[in-house]
Amino acid sequence: MSETKLPLVEETIAKKALQTAYSRETSALIAKVRESSESINSLEDLWFLHDLLSTKRYEIDGKYTYNAATMVFDFADLVKQGWLSLEDLEGLNSTMRSKIAALAKM
Amino acid sequence: MSETKLPLVEETIAKKALQTAYSRETSALIAKVRESSESINSLEDLWFLHDLLSTKRYEIDGKYTYNAATMVFDFADLVKQGWLSLEDLEGLNSTMRSKIAALAKM
Repeated sequence: MSETKLPLVEETIAKKALQTAYSRETSALIAKVRESSESINSLEDLWFLHDLLSTKRYEIDGKYTYNAATMVFDFADLVKQGWLSLEDLEGLNSTMRSKIAALAKM
Repeated sequence: MSETKLPLVEETIAKKALQTAYSRETSALIAKVRESSESINSLEDLWFLHDLLSTKRYEIDGKYTYNAATMVFDFADLVKQGWLSLEDLEGLNSTMRSKIAALAKM
């Protein structure tokens, strides 16, 4: 657990990166919903949108809460999903960045 | 149960009225979703839309399945909700229309 608590500077960088990823995923989802709304012509289309929102709500719920104990895994997931790049994590210690990079490739 | 089975002419009118109400409610819902999609700016707005769709899906599921045994009540609900008018039911026997009209006022 020695790496659970980050120095304040790194914690700030981590939280900022989390906020960046949150903004990117949220913006992309909003754009997708707006775009798909334009082509809704039937109840079937509506329920398809409903299913999409159900899935995304389940996925996103709690995803962007900062947790020092799990952040290596959380950030690796965000890199893998394309919401963060390793460049967004500059300023974090190199050990942590290497772990995130390695996990993101798995 | 003597009134469960309608003469074919009336059954056709009832099914057509059901289809009319279905089209009206569906069109109104689609228009509402499209309109509200344009003003989505946050996840909170998205989950509000999700909640709306969850509620509507639950409400609409099975609502437009023709059922002769419950149609007086089903049609009264549709009139009450504004998706049908009594004029849409012209051609149905007057006893049934009177019951629907009375129930719709409750």
